[in-house]
Amino acid sequence: MFGTKGGQGLFFEDFAVGQWWELPIPRTLTDGDRALYTALTGDRTPAYCGPSLVHPLAVFHTVFGQTVRVISLNAVANLGYARMKWGAPVEVGDTLTTRIDIVGLKENSSGASGIVWVDTVGRNQHGVEVIRFTRWVMVRKRSEAPTAYRNTPVIPDLPAWLTANELELPSTPLPTIAQTGSPLRWSDYTVGERIAHWDGMTVTEAEHMSFTRLFQNSAKVHFDARAMQGRPLVYGGVVISLAYALSFNGLENRVGIRAINGGTHANPVYAGDTLYAYTEVLDAAKLGGGVGALRLRMVVVKNREPWAGPFLEPQIADPRNPARSAHRSDVVLDLDYWDLVPT
Amino acid sequence: MFGTKGGQGLFFEDFAVGQWWELPIPRTLTDGDRALYTALTGDRTPAYCGPSLVHPLAVFHTVFGQTVRVISLNAVANLGYARMKWGAPVEVGDTLTTRIDIVGLKENSSGASGIVWVDTVGRNQHGVEVIRFTRWVMVRKRSEAPTAYRNTPVIPDLPAWLTANELELPSTPLPTIAQTGSPLRWSDYTVGERIAHWDGMTVTEAEHMSFTRLFQNSAKVHFDARAMQGRPLVYGGVVISLAYALSFNGLENRVGIRAINGGTHANPVYAGDTLYAYTEVLDAAKLGGGVGALRLRMVVVKNREPWAGPFLEPQIADPRNPARSAHRSDVVLDLDYWDLVPT
Amino acid sequence: MFGTKGGQGLFFEDFAVGQWWELPIPRTLTDGDRALYTALTGDRTPAYCGPSLVHPLAVFHTVFGQTVRVISLNAVANLGYARMKWGAPVEVGDTLTTRIDIVGLKENSSGASGIVWVDTVGRNQHGVEVIRFTRWVMVRKRSEAPTAYRNTPVIPDLPAWLTANELELPSTPLPTIAQTGSPLRWSDYTVGERIAHWDGMTVTEAEHMSFTRLFQNSAKVHFDARAMQGRPLVYGGVVISLAYALSFNGLENRVGIRAINGGTHANPVYAGDTLYAYTEVLDAAKLGGGVGALRLRMVVVKNREPWAGPFLEPQIADPRNPARSAHRSDVVLDLDYWDLVPT
Repeated sequence: MFGTKGGQGLFFEDFAVGQWWELPIPRTLTDGDRALYTALTGDRTPAYCGPSLVHPLAVFHTVFGQTVRVISLNAVANLGYARMKWGAPVEVGDTLTTRIDIVGLKENSSGASGIVWVDTVGRNQHGVEVIRFTRWVMVRKRSEAPTAYRNTPVIPDLPAWLTANELELPSTPLPTIAQTGSPLRWSDYTVGERIAHWDGMTVTEAEHMSFTRLFQNSAKVHFDARAMQGRPLVYGGVVISLAYALSFNGLENRVGIRAINGGTHANPVYAGDTLYAYTEVLDAAKLGGGVGALRLRMVVVKNREPWAGPFLEPQIADPRNPARSAHRSDVVLDLDYWDLVPT
Repeated sequence: MFGTKGGQGLFFEDFAVGQWWELPIPRTLTDGDRALYTALTGDRTPAYCGPSLVHPLAVFHTVFGQTVRVISLNAVANLGYARMKWGAPVEVGDTLTTRIDIVGLKENSSGASGIVWVDTVGRNQHGVEVIRFTRWVMVRKRSEAPTAYRNTPVIPDLPAWLTANELELPSTPLPTIAQTGSPLRWSDYTVGERIAHWDGMTVTEAEHMSFTRLFQNSAKVHFDARAMQGRPLVYGGVVISLAYALSFNGLENRVGIRAINGGTHANPVYAGDTLYAYTEVLDAAKLGGGVGALRLRMVVVKNREPWAGPFLEPQIADPRNPARSAHRSDVVLDLDYWDLVPT
Repeated sequence: MFGTKGGQGLFFEDFAVGQWWELPIPRTLTDGDRALYTALTGDRTPAYCGPSLVHPLAVFHTVFGQTVRVISLNAVANLGYARMKWGAPVEVGDTLTTRIDIVGLKENSSGASGIVWVDTVGRNQHGVEVIRFTRWVMVRKRSEAPTAYRNTPVIPDLPAWLTANELELPSTPLPTIAQTGSPLRWSDYTVGERIAHWDGMTVTEAEHMSFTRLFQNSAKVHFDARAMQGRPLVYGGVVISLAYALSFNGLENRVGIRAINGGTHANPVYAGDTLYAYTEVLDAAKLGGGVGALRLRMVVVKNREPWAGPFLEPQIADPRNPARSAHRSDVVLDLDYWDLVPT
C-alpha cells in the first residue's frame, strides 16, 4: 500500500569497496548557523565569536551530516575517526559539498552487521578542501547470508595519528591575549599535564535535536523518542562540540581544532546527562608562523566530575576480557586531536 | 486597578464582513530565521539550504503570525485553509507585511462562538504579493446575545482546490539531481500512489515554542503551560513544517510548496508526541518551464507509524454521526497541496 | 593530578577597589543573534523586527556575559543594578567589548561572602559607548579570614534613578502607528496607572540555557543540572527579556529601553515557571525630538496572574523583620526603567 519511494538507507550488503558518492544538498553556512552554534554549545573561542569565520567543528558537522542518508541510517554505532584534517577556513556564505569513498568493508562474525570505512572530503564552492577524514561505522545487514567481505575483509591502513607537520597552518589572524584573556602560550603547556575544565553542561532534549537538525543529520535515532523508548540518542557530534566548548577554560589561546587523530564515542549520551571534560597534553611541536601544535586527549565523562575524588583512568580492564582494556561506563568520548596555540 | 491598555484580543462580536486591517510589525527575514527554520524542522529541500531563498512555509508562518493578535487570541480552533497560493519568492532581507479582510461570519447555534473567514495577503517591501490565502477560525463570543450573523450568516464561496494552471511558475533555478540526490522526476509519480516518509520526529516543548515565537505568533495557548494545565498546544504550523520536512524523503526534487487547496488540523499535538507522515498523489499536471505540478495529500499521524501494520484510512465514520466521516483520533493534519517537480 | 590551568573564578578576597579589566572575547552581533533573540523571547518591538538594529537588551546581555568569568563564577546572587544607560545604537555587524572597574567592596558580617560593586562599560568597534551600568553582586569568600573591607567597606554613591534628561535621544527613526498597531502616544500614559500585559510565558530548560549561552554567560549554575540538584537557575537576564517582550502589549509605541534606574531579582526562576508581568507608570517627562520619556516599574510574577483576584502589592512586610519590606515570594523581578514613546 506504500510504494518504493522514500529511502530507508543502505545496509551492509549494499556497499562495495571503491564505491563513491558526490553527496546532495549543498549547504550554505551563515551567521544564523554561527549564532546557533554559540547558543547550543556555549563555545567562546574568540576567532568564532568575531565576524565571518565558521567554527571548524561546525564545518565537520555539516560534512558529517551530508553523509548520514547514505552511511548512517542503518548504523548500529559510529566506531571511530582517523586522519581528520581541516583545510581552508570556512567563512560566512561558503557552500559546502561532500564526497565519500568506501575504502574498507569487514563483515562481523555474527553475520548481523559489518564495518564500513568511509573516506570523506568536504569542499567549498570553489572546490577547495575544507575537511577530510576517514570514519568507520557498524552497519546492519539486511539478511544473515554472508557477503564476500566476511572471509575477505578489506581494512584500510590508517595512521594512529597525524604528525604535527601535516597540519594546515592558520591563514587567519592569530588570537591575541586581549581577545582570549589568558597569558598561556604554547610553551606554557607540558606533555603529560592534565587540565580540568571545571564546568559542567547538562544536555537537553530540545537542544541536541536542534543542533543535529541544523547540520542536516536526519538519523532517526536522534529524533524519534517513541522508537527509542523515550530516550533519543544524542548525536556524538553534540558531545564533541559541547566538550570542546567547555575546554576553552584552560586552552584560551587555541586557534581552533586542526586535526583529529582518533576518537571513540565510548558510551551513549541521553538528554539529562551532564557532561564534564578534562584534557591531557599528549605531545607538543613547534611549527612556523608563530604557532606551536598541541596534541591533546580530551576525555568527556557523564554525571561525575573527573576532578572530584581520586583520579580514575578512563580505560580499565575489560570485564568481559581482562587482557583488553575498555572505557569506564561513564566515559562518553575519548578524543585525540591537534590544536594550535601561538608561541 | 489595571487600566484598559494591553489588548486581550477581539471576540466574534467585534468582527463585521468588510472590515480590513493593514497589520503592524513588519518583519524582515534573515539568515538567522533560515538557520532556525532548519534547526527546528530539519527541512533539507535544497533550494532553502543554499544561499538567500526563504522557505515558503517560513513565509506562511510570518504572515500567519502577523494576523494572530487580531484574529486568534480568542480562537477556539483554526478550522481550515483554502486557496492558499505563494507569489514572488522571498529572499534574505525582504520585509513582509500583511493585510487581512473579513470575508465571512457565521455565528454557531450554541451562541458561544462563531466562525470568521479571513482573506490574508502578505507582501514584500516592494508591495509585491508573496502569499495569499483564506482561513477560517472559530472565535469565542463575548456574550451569549445573538448577532446578526446568527440568522444571516455570510459564507464565502471557496474553491475546493486551485487548478494547476493557477500556480506561480518558479522564477528561481530548478533543483538538479546533483543537488537533491534523487533521480525521481515529475513523470515518475503516479496518481493514487502513496509514499511513506519513514522517519519520525518527536516534538519538544522548547522547540515548538521557539518556532512559534520566531514568527511573532503570540497566542498564549502555545506558551502558558500553567493556563494549559501543563500542556501548551503546539501551533499547527509547527506540524505543517515538521511534516513537510519529513516528506522530503521521497519527494526530493520538489521545488517547494506552491499552493494549499485545503487543510485540517484534525487533532491537537502536544510536546512529546511523535509525528509520522505519508503522502498520497491526488493529481498531476504538466506545466511549462520544465516543471510539472503534483497535487499531494500529506497525512500526519501521531504516535503510530502509518506504514506499520495494515493501512488505516485517515477518515472513518464519525462515531457521533455515522453518516458523516471524521478523522481518526491519531491523525493530526490532513493537507491538500500543490508542489512542483522538474519534468 | 590536575594542573592549575582552567579558571574557577575569583573570590571576594581577590577584588580591590580600583581594579579594572578590559575583558576578552569581543562579540560580533549578527542577524543570527537577532533571530534567536526573537525566537527565545517573542519580543515584537518593531524597531528590532525590521532590518539591522540589535535589541538594547541583547546589547545588555552581551556586555553582561563578558563580565561573568571575572565577576560571577563564585557569585551567590546578583543583587542590583543602578544608573544603567544605553548609548549609541548597535547594528548588525558591530563588535562589542567591555571594561569593568571595581568601585565598591563590603564584606558581609557572616564572613562567608561580600558585595562587589562593578562599573561596566560596553563599547563598539569604534570605541563608542553602547551601554554603561553599575551592578552589585554577592560573591563568596575563599576563607573566613576577614578582609580590610569588613571594617572599612567602600560603598559607591549611586543615584536612586537617572533623570529623564540624562537619556540618550533616539538617533534611529521613531516607530509609526502603522508599524506598532497602537494609537497610544506618550500623552496617553498617566503617572500611577498600571498596565496588565495579560499573556504568560512558561520558561523551558532548553530555551533559558540557549539564551544564556548565546551571550557567552558561562556561569555553571545555569547549565549544570546535576550540581543544581536538577534545577539549574534561570539567568536573571532571561526574566528581564521575557517580561520586556510580554510588556509590548500595552506599550506598543515604545522606542526601546533607554535606562534602568534599579532592579531586583527578588526570587529565583526555574524551568517550568510561568511568568506574568504588569507595568506601573512612575513618572513621565516630555523630551525633545518628538519623544517623551516614561519611567516604568515592571513587576514580574511567577505562577500567578497578577490581574486575577485582588491586587497584591509586590512588597510586603518582611516576615523576618516587620519594620522592613520584602518582595512577595512569587515576585521574581522588580525593575525600574525608562523607555521613550513618541509624543
